[in-house]
Amino acid sequence: MNIPNTSKKRVVIIGGGFAGIALAKKLKNKNLQVVLLDKHNYHTFQPLLYQVATGGLEAGSIAYPIRKVIQGCHDFYFRLTTVKEIDTQNQKVISEIGDLHYDYLVIATGSKTNYFGNKEIERHSMSMKTIPQSLNIRSLILENFEQAVLTKDETEKKALMNFVLVGGGPTGVELAGALAEMKKAIFQKDYPDLDIQKMEIHLIQSGDRILNTMTEKSSEASEKFLNSLGVKIWKNVRVTNYDGRTISTNSNLSLESATVIWTAGVQGACVHGLPAESVIDKVARIRVNAYNQVKGFENIFAIGDIASMESEAYPQGHPMMAQPAIQQGELLGDNLMKLAEGQLMQAFEYNDKGSMATIGRNLAVVDLPKYHFNGVFAWFVWMFVHLFSLIGFKNKAVVFLNWVYNYIRFDREGRLIIRPYKKKSFTTFTSDEI
Amino acid sequence: MNIPNTSKKRVVIIGGGFAGIALAKKLKNKNLQVVLLDKHNYHTFQPLLYQVATGGLEAGSIAYPIRKVIQGCHDFYFRLTTVKEIDTQNQKVISEIGDLHYDYLVIATGSKTNYFGNKEIERHSMSMKTIPQSLNIRSLILENFEQAVLTKDETEKKALMNFVLVGGGPTGVELAGALAEMKKAIFQKDYPDLDIQKMEIHLIQSGDRILNTMTEKSSEASEKFLNSLGVKIWKNVRVTNYDGRTISTNSNLSLESATVIWTAGVQGACVHGLPAESVIDKVARIRVNAYNQVKGFENIFAIGDIASMESEAYPQGHPMMAQPAIQQGELLGDNLMKLAEGQLMQAFEYNDKGSMATIGRNLAVVDLPKYHFNGVFAWFVWMFVHLFSLIGFKNKAVVFLNWVYNYIRFDREGRLIIRPYKKKSFTTFTSDEI
Repeated sequence: MNIPNTSKKRVVIIGGGFAGIALAKKLKNKNLQVVLLDKHNYHTFQPLLYQVATGGLEAGSIAYPIRKVIQGCHDFYFRLTTVKEIDTQNQKVISEIGDLHYDYLVIATGSKTNYFGNKEIERHSMSMKTIPQSLNIRSLILENFEQAVLTKDETEKKALMNFVLVGGGPTGVELAGALAEMKKAIFQKDYPDLDIQKMEIHLIQSGDRILNTMTEKSSEASEKFLNSLGVKIWKNVRVTNYDGRTISTNSNLSLESATVIWTAGVQGACVHGLPAESVIDKVARIRVNAYNQVKGFENIFAIGDIASMESEAYPQGHPMMAQPAIQQGELLGDNLMKLAEGQLMQAFEYNDKGSMATIGRNLAVVDLPKYHFNGVFAWFVWMFVHLFSLIGFKNKAVVFLNWVYNYIRFDREGRLIIRPYKKKSFTTFTSDEI
Repeated sequence: MNIPNTSKKRVVIIGGGFAGIALAKKLKNKNLQVVLLDKHNYHTFQPLLYQVATGGLEAGSIAYPIRKVIQGCHDFYFRLTTVKEIDTQNQKVISEIGDLHYDYLVIATGSKTNYFGNKEIERHSMSMKTIPQSLNIRSLILENFEQAVLTKDETEKKALMNFVLVGGGPTGVELAGALAEMKKAIFQKDYPDLDIQKMEIHLIQSGDRILNTMTEKSSEASEKFLNSLGVKIWKNVRVTNYDGRTISTNSNLSLESATVIWTAGVQGACVHGLPAESVIDKVARIRVNAYNQVKGFENIFAIGDIASMESEAYPQGHPMMAQPAIQQGELLGDNLMKLAEGQLMQAFEYNDKGSMATIGRNLAVVDLPKYHFNGVFAWFVWMFVHLFSLIGFKNKAVVFLNWVYNYIRFDREGRLIIRPYKKKSFTTFTSDEI
């Protein structure tokens, strides 16, 4: 990888997400050599991916060049690559661009979509964990409308105008709300030749309430908000299959749709090479102790979504979201320096600052440790928290400007099919009428 | 195409570029049915493509949804499709989504890159006429730098850090300037492990001056500006081949480069189906009379880059740029209404407002009909003219904000490889050292 060998110990970080970047910032110009690896050359602000998918923001506004984060740092390297395997025996990372020895290894590879082994669903539905995936969703939504205009077959048209979100977590809820707003703000005006009332948004949740990691009060409020936007919520329904056209469930609900977005499960984006006992099979997360050390290793750490630190308060590990990732990354930065200097490390304690979700214009739910509220004020809180969490002044400014514009104009100008999405299978339009 | 037949005459416009959009705006809610066809669902502001390619602007800032342009118009349709052929006999447009009868047909398909028949150059070099192409260039530039970091082979490294622009027109000049600024503003800081002085930018021009459609004063000034930025200009040199690695020329200049951007020629993006005598072979432009009527037809028109209206002042037709396109589109809007009402049409007269090009920060050249100037003031003129020519308030605001930020911070944050560009052939890195 063309990294010089120096007298300093080398930390290799795999992944430039919230955890990896928080750690990298802590290790700037310290007495360690740092190599950060990522398969993208940018950090993604994942909480706003749904706005890229629904044309409210441009991809560049929620991405930040990783090389800029580490600009001016001494003995700090970035390499654009995919890690294939870890060789723990020889302390080496094996990647597409070569091998790299590590003294300390930090796995911060995050999470990916979990289809629970259903290959058919994986093949036909969309997931939204990366910017390219969000852009694919954006293209597909718009392509389906362009197709709907053409067909005279009413069943076909209906399927093209049906949008199904599987999973009632924040991603599913936020996407459902954004789609409902697109219906009113864009599709109704852009497609006068379509009966826009035929556009339906379905949110399918296997449990008995949506946003089930939040308070019941927030679940109820978000459900009320979604209903007011016209979203159809199906609770206690589990999707069993999707063949690119028909969604089957364990109830008697069956829907026809050209667009299924799967947000029903996440799992660790685990790297190969760790012994079986270090990884929790079911969710592919890595077992770590209170110092984020991987079970069985002194010098391998895992932080963020990929790490499962089981504790009394969090028997399943911390929730897979930005806050635990950032806090673990920051603490590990301090701990690595302590470790390198032979000092004792500090155990991680999660400071739960609360969680929030936005449903639409003036509609959000916020759970702070002591207060739970929703509506307009919650929406402003949501906006400001997200705005200030973005990296970089320019991204903050551009996102703010877009939000103000979209708010005032009830519009989303990012309805651009820059790279058409080639759907793997949806009944081809054979009608000679189109 | 699912377009209703009404009693109104139907105008079919092929292409939503400057000409097509100018015409469409004129025909809003008039006594004609209008169908606008384009292979993209957005209008592209082509003069700023080079800023997308070099990370200064996001794609969405220079694109505008076509459906938004025609929002609220009565009996006005947009269809996303590629036109395969025109059947002049039966007055039909044959497209990928079906056939469509026209009463009036307007061809506004613009221009595409002209490789003058050299397939090898076409295969290996990049062109920049569309947003996806610009994004490909952006990805390739950044990928080459990521590769350059890895290789220890100095020849390879040099080739990856060499950028060759073929064609000394505005696109080549503006790209050369932007790349030179990226060198200082970004690459120097982002790639501390590279000797950035090895990055070279070559501009190759077959004629004896660059910007040869502008005044000699502007040519000289732009050459001086490019020299000051470190761009190497080769005049009276014609590129004869590029195999993905080596650029051969008709002189003894030979360069090794992984990135060749070809801006040396444009030709009409002609549609099939017109009789041979209507098309000028050499440049694939359509012969039109002073009313933009295609030679041999009363009801077929061509406007913009694709149209060649030969006149005393412009024996080769008007220059292929935005101004003639917009003016022809606007006049044709009036003329079509006159034609439909049986009135006489008005002949086109080009009002040359001048031309300009920007080379870099504070460096631009402007030729107005009476004044020619360059430097800081020209640069501000260039900026304001381009800012105000963008469609839509939000695009204007976002571009302005980006420019202010980039200017103050000497930065371009769009250095994101969102979709990697798969280069067709560049010697693979087989070194085991990488």
